[in-house]
Amino acid sequence: MKINIERNSKTALYLQIKNQIKDMIYLKRLPLDYILPSERELAKTLHVNRSTVVKAYEELKAEGLIDSQIGKGTYIVFCDKNTLKSRSSSFRKHLFWDEIYSKNSRNSHNDVISRIMDIGNNEIVSFAGGIPSPDLFPKSEFQKVQIKLLKDEVENMFLHSPVNGYKELKKEIKNLMLNREIRISTNNIMITSGSQQGLDLIVRAFVSPNDIILVEEPTFFGAIQLFEALGAKVVAVPVDEYGIQVDALEYLINKLKPKFIYSIPNFQNPTGITMSLERRYELIIIIEKYGIPIIEDDPYGELRYEGKDLPPLKALDKNDYVIYLSTFSKVISLGLRVGWIVAPERVINKLGSFKQLTDLHVNTLSQHMICEFLKQSYYENHIKRIKKEYTFKRDLMIKELEKNFTEIEFYKPQGGFYLWCKLLNNVDLNLLLKKSIKNKVNYIPGNFFYAKNKEKSNFIRLNFTYPKKEEIVIGIKRLKNTLNEII
Amino acid sequence: MKINIERNSKTALYLQIKNQIKDMIYLKRLPLDYILPSERELAKTLHVNRSTVVKAYEELKAEGLIDSQIGKGTYIVFCDKNTLKSRSSSFRKHLFWDEIYSKNSRNSHNDVISRIMDIGNNEIVSFAGGIPSPDLFPKSEFQKVQIKLLKDEVENMFLHSPVNGYKELKKEIKNLMLNREIRISTNNIMITSGSQQGLDLIVRAFVSPNDIILVEEPTFFGAIQLFEALGAKVVAVPVDEYGIQVDALEYLINKLKPKFIYSIPNFQNPTGITMSLERRYELIIIIEKYGIPIIEDDPYGELRYEGKDLPPLKALDKNDYVIYLSTFSKVISLGLRVGWIVAPERVINKLGSFKQLTDLHVNTLSQHMICEFLKQSYYENHIKRIKKEYTFKRDLMIKELEKNFTEIEFYKPQGGFYLWCKLLNNVDLNLLLKKSIKNKVNYIPGNFFYAKNKEKSNFIRLNFTYPKKEEIVIGIKRLKNTLNEII
Repeated sequence: MKINIERNSKTALYLQIKNQIKDMIYLKRLPLDYILPSERELAKTLHVNRSTVVKAYEELKAEGLIDSQIGKGTYIVFCDKNTLKSRSSSFRKHLFWDEIYSKNSRNSHNDVISRIMDIGNNEIVSFAGGIPSPDLFPKSEFQKVQIKLLKDEVENMFLHSPVNGYKELKKEIKNLMLNREIRISTNNIMITSGSQQGLDLIVRAFVSPNDIILVEEPTFFGAIQLFEALGAKVVAVPVDEYGIQVDALEYLINKLKPKFIYSIPNFQNPTGITMSLERRYELIIIIEKYGIPIIEDDPYGELRYEGKDLPPLKALDKNDYVIYLSTFSKVISLGLRVGWIVAPERVINKLGSFKQLTDLHVNTLSQHMICEFLKQSYYENHIKRIKKEYTFKRDLMIKELEKNFTEIEFYKPQGGFYLWCKLLNNVDLNLLLKKSIKNKVNYIPGNFFYAKNKEKSNFIRLNFTYPKKEEIVIGIKRLKNTLNEII
Repeated sequence: MKINIERNSKTALYLQIKNQIKDMIYLKRLPLDYILPSERELAKTLHVNRSTVVKAYEELKAEGLIDSQIGKGTYIVFCDKNTLKSRSSSFRKHLFWDEIYSKNSRNSHNDVISRIMDIGNNEIVSFAGGIPSPDLFPKSEFQKVQIKLLKDEVENMFLHSPVNGYKELKKEIKNLMLNREIRISTNNIMITSGSQQGLDLIVRAFVSPNDIILVEEPTFFGAIQLFEALGAKVVAVPVDEYGIQVDALEYLINKLKPKFIYSIPNFQNPTGITMSLERRYELIIIIEKYGIPIIEDDPYGELRYEGKDLPPLKALDKNDYVIYLSTFSKVISLGLRVGWIVAPERVINKLGSFKQLTDLHVNTLSQHMICEFLKQSYYENHIKRIKKEYTFKRDLMIKELEKNFTEIEFYKPQGGFYLWCKLLNNVDLNLLLKKSIKNKVNYIPGNFFYAKNKEKSNFIRLNFTYPKKEEIVIGIKRLKNTLNEII
């Protein structure tokens, strides 16, 4: 409802308001039952005294055009006979939206995880997220970047971008990829709203309902849920300490003719396992033998705390079987939503036509921010800084776990974000989560990382990057106390 | 490929480089055929003299580990016997990505439009886009907003946001909606990456393959293509100067039992037609009668250049049949990618679970920028300013069309972005577009706005907001000359 106040007019303010509302009612621009803003709200919007609005509403009430009721507010009661006729007829009914969901909507994916992650208040220690430490955000660098952009590029920062991404940022990513042994041109790159969107675009472009996708077991729940929401069948391949087991993989490929393999070779989520170099070579041989492409998800690759970097599958891939995904979410900022896909040029173009339909392009502002951050060479030092800090946090969490528990086993990851902890077999995970949250510590229960998540799991995933150091100490103690309560 | 240079080491720099590469080759961290960075690139990355890298590479060559070839660069030739064996076996082959697209991918959607829009150089006058004037971008306001945010909120600007959007921004949008007669709570709002993403989420949540969606004919091509890409059947409902024809609509509802109706009531894209108030009421009665929900797309509603604002369908919707979409793309900035959905709370929650899988949330930076822009009350004045300018541009384009053509008919829109121009029946639209681009003016041919876009159309859509005033004059002349050439 827009009302124009003319302060120089001879007509009293309350009359201006009254007459304009009356107009809108008679012209049916405001329908029957329409709830007017409260007197206070409208006074505030129009910058007039509240008593002015009160007077206008009173006169409208006196004329039988509006009425008010406690709880409902002030609403329109006037309507002409035609409207009344149609309104009173028998066919009116509410729509039951729950009954009209699409087939894909019904592929159950629960939002328990979002709810666990949303449990955020200052008292809860959260080991649940996959979020970098807010304290390590490169604040002063980003301030410098923004000031520079405001000065030199304010024209371009808010314009639309090409579907596949801002060219200068793609150049920077191309150089970044050289550090990971991946040599490509900018035409092999698409910028996405984080790697989650990269995954979504790939699945939409290539996967039809009932297609099979092989995944490591356990694996990232966001991938499982996405694949299932798009109608794919997710089948798990067992994993050992060197990564995906290629003999089992070969057996499943023969049996199921999958459309894709989805793998996280570096510091896998949730297990923290890094696929060995030998396994990487074997995997490439298998997929070339059977002609099955791989989606390689590498959000954590930069975050190695010990040992030597291994080449991504994409670097070993001579025949274009690998689509590589990465992101700045785990190393710079989750909130900026900037990730990327590396793929053959014709695949990038196909994905581009989906990107166009989905949301046109990644917001220009974030692309410029990240681009300038890379150009100014802030990236390398920033990575060094966070690796040092995360190494410390990982070791601290391990120390606290060892100090407090004899009954928890875990694998020490060479990098990444997570400790994957095995509890005793008889622990009731549902009860543990409920009690933990009550005791102000949370995490993700292991069953979410399995394709069949009803399966019994006695693992929990703990994130060590997000909590502060003192929170790690407190949180592990709380976990210990909780476990004691229920055993 | 990461190489660590120790400048304090006693080992010569070239030896450090050589030894580390040799290590990586022997450990197969760099695979056979891997192309090393050029000497110049590597020298630049490592901040060493080029001759240092030359020397390192020479020694590696002398040891038979690498080789170089013009056009290919320097690459690794060493490999062990096992690798050689597997590499030379017969099953290796390239993957043909084009053969493995999903069913939905094959629902043809062409990228001719993106290509037309991409034709951008300073010489071409573009009437093709749906883009606001870059000259009207509220630069100084955004600079002020950014400086304020950098000072007060740098902590929060880069953190993750809730799936459904930043709470403060939702409050601002809730207030904005009151101006459009829509009274809701923040739980009825989801922030999206532009309204294109809003549409995508709705279709994914509700529309199954072969479901029917009724649209106005002609309508926005991005909607048609999206619906078809997701497997829906798009059926057109005829439109007259008052909007969608409800008798035809009722007939088609009875016959086809559609899942949704998609409508752009204000300054429709491409026709510029505004649905009359009476038609709006009739439409609501029909959809309640048959229980068919509406997607109301309202990107242009704020941009009325004459006449009085009409209430959106959502304002007339007492029984929750309408999902309302809007965006800041047409009034503030396309590049920020911020739009929103208004829907019943349970629908918003369902859409949220898709949003989570798709890209987690809209980037935090853009949400804060727009939020602060609204909070500081820059919005209202900005809208006034652009309306004034666009009214002028619309009238200028109309004047130029009338001056140059007798053979073009068009409808004068009361607002929005477009003139929908009818050419003579015998004009070959393909030829006209080809010649127009050669003559440095472009636009979107009418056939893209029809569900069956092979249908012959003799319309073209001209955008008057993006080109500068002098470009409007020049562009219309070029169009006239082009038309003369081919008739």
